[in-house]
Amino acid sequence: MKYISILGATGSIGTQTLEVLRNSNNSFKLLGFSANKSYSEIINIINEFNPEHVAITDETTYQRVKDFCSKNNICIEVSYGIDGLNKVATLPVVNIVVTSIVGMIGLVPTINAIKAGKDIALANKETLVVGGKLVKAEAQKHNVKILPVDSEHGAIFQCLQGNKHSEVKKIILTASGGPFRGKTSEELKSITLKDALAHPKWTMGKKITIDSATLMNKGLEVIEAHWLFNMNYSDIDVVVHPESVIHSMVEYIDGSVMAQMAATDMKLPIQYAINYPNRQNSVVEYLDFCKIKSLTFENPDISTFKCLKLAYEAGEIGGTLPTILNGANEVAVDLFLNNKVSFLKIGDIIEECMNIFSYSNNFTINDILETDNKVRKYVYNKYGD
Amino acid sequence: MKYISILGATGSIGTQTLEVLRNSNNSFKLLGFSANKSYSEIINIINEFNPEHVAITDETTYQRVKDFCSKNNICIEVSYGIDGLNKVATLPVVNIVVTSIVGMIGLVPTINAIKAGKDIALANKETLVVGGKLVKAEAQKHNVKILPVDSEHGAIFQCLQGNKHSEVKKIILTASGGPFRGKTSEELKSITLKDALAHPKWTMGKKITIDSATLMNKGLEVIEAHWLFNMNYSDIDVVVHPESVIHSMVEYIDGSVMAQMAATDMKLPIQYAINYPNRQNSVVEYLDFCKIKSLTFENPDISTFKCLKLAYEAGEIGGTLPTILNGANEVAVDLFLNNKVSFLKIGDIIEECMNIFSYSNNFTINDILETDNKVRKYVYNKYGD
Repeated sequence: MKYISILGATGSIGTQTLEVLRNSNNSFKLLGFSANKSYSEIINIINEFNPEHVAITDETTYQRVKDFCSKNNICIEVSYGIDGLNKVATLPVVNIVVTSIVGMIGLVPTINAIKAGKDIALANKETLVVGGKLVKAEAQKHNVKILPVDSEHGAIFQCLQGNKHSEVKKIILTASGGPFRGKTSEELKSITLKDALAHPKWTMGKKITIDSATLMNKGLEVIEAHWLFNMNYSDIDVVVHPESVIHSMVEYIDGSVMAQMAATDMKLPIQYAINYPNRQNSVVEYLDFCKIKSLTFENPDISTFKCLKLAYEAGEIGGTLPTILNGANEVAVDLFLNNKVSFLKIGDIIEECMNIFSYSNNFTINDILETDNKVRKYVYNKYGD
Repeated sequence: MKYISILGATGSIGTQTLEVLRNSNNSFKLLGFSANKSYSEIINIINEFNPEHVAITDETTYQRVKDFCSKNNICIEVSYGIDGLNKVATLPVVNIVVTSIVGMIGLVPTINAIKAGKDIALANKETLVVGGKLVKAEAQKHNVKILPVDSEHGAIFQCLQGNKHSEVKKIILTASGGPFRGKTSEELKSITLKDALAHPKWTMGKKITIDSATLMNKGLEVIEAHWLFNMNYSDIDVVVHPESVIHSMVEYIDGSVMAQMAATDMKLPIQYAINYPNRQNSVVEYLDFCKIKSLTFENPDISTFKCLKLAYEAGEIGGTLPTILNGANEVAVDLFLNNKVSFLKIGDIIEECMNIFSYSNNFTINDILETDNKVRKYVYNKYGD
């Protein structure tokens, strides 16, 4: 039996993690989880999984859940805000923390979980994108495993099993190419929010769907891959593979390329991460190669989709520059989702912020949070009206 | 430094093994090799690699090589025939024996190498196809590794690294489909020897090229895979993949499929087998996915290409039936290569032999050799005029 906490249990990854737990023959016990505002989902999780602790970041929802539990004599600790997140992340008996909470708010609880010796099933992008250097150092110090939950890094992780790091030549992240693959900058000028939200392969949250359309999602994955797998940026390739059957690959010095393939369903990488080093019976459909028929590949168009290029640049330079990239992107995407800026403006805003904000290579968690804050304010103030 | 012997050093796999040794930074020393009639190649190998022992199966060539070495004061033991093969297979210092000798003649020396505790880089198909049961038992008893040299089993071997056998759902052998993929039985009636020798992807010996056109090659690989990887026949699939970029795959219980890809060059699986568990720098071209563009898949047509179906049947029933299948196929292919029988007759002859010869599940090496002999004689007598 593994004991598990989920930070962000009502989001896309959190919900699918619960689905994996339901199908795991009681090999997991959910001890704690966090959520924000989804009151009825929170109550359902409490009723179904009977955890010991729930942390809620929205104050009103926190109060409602607390009242509900006390009225119904449910034996659970209900805590609030960042303190609550930290508690859920460090519950004494927990073996593994799924960090499916979205945004910078996940950074500190994840580091605290690592310091408490918990293995991390990592879905929170910011953890490695902005905090990679600090997080890696803590993970090494406390000897905890960082198990990637997304399909690309999960694939690479599998392709590395039974092989030596010194024999890896490069890692090859596959990208679906998003809904605008093959389009010119001219064509991208007129695209709408609805176009951008229609991802051809994956059903995901809005933010990540837009990141997928700009290729920033792949850019952030490149930075994560750098930290997760200890690879130079020059040894991380991106190849567009619209069918999204091959979830990523590793090339070895002898010319062998190992690839991991599976149905496009996030439950599979979640299941692999929390069960590692074991596998469990499938919660997704098995592949049928005769139905797949064809797998195709092309180079990404980084002059049209400049977010990917900017992410490589930010990663290569390092320090707090990825924080600037990430913060600018998050606000720009939010503004795009609210029809304040155009699709192509997202890349322009990130580039602008990377040019005007100074970055530091010697930094703490506080520096990250401050830098992030400054960048967000700047973008909201300038483009948010 | 690893010490190596090659049984069949002047054939297609043997020659490529020597090429791998040339590119291995002196991490191997060739101690012994065998050959048949290729006099000048034998002399070249002796001059270049300075081995301690050579075994020659053709008597005239044996005498010529012996004379050459004594005239030129070359310090090497030259031995003859099956005794010579057994000596080369069991040289005391040798760590690994590459069994690239073609045909039944490879069976006994391979078993002797195993009994002498040598790891086997296995290229001789007969070893597992006809002798799988006996060879596996000896390998376990003497704790030796059987490292597959062909691209498909080498791929599966790589896809299994770092995983548990209990978590394998099935193995998926890829097949190029050969030059006649998509053709109907009617169309196959008129094909010529030249058509059959024109393999679309691999340059190989004539016998294996014809086996590739009939899909018997894949059938024999299915039987080998059964023994190599301890898999039921129902858990071994064949999928046609004309580009031959994915060399084979393993599906796990969680729905993940691991695939190994590489250039279509036998030097790569040879290099992997003899270096295992290490990899060495590439002797082949690296893959370029943007040049590959597309990988396709289809089901094999086992009603038209019945050899594959017959191989599954022979493997499933076991005993000496695969010996009957293999012997009948070898002679039928030889007769086809000599324009004695048509392409489609190959499958018919094998089916006939599987029907009329009795097989046994309790057998020795001698039973295998006798059965093989009987089947060969029958086919030559009936169809060889």
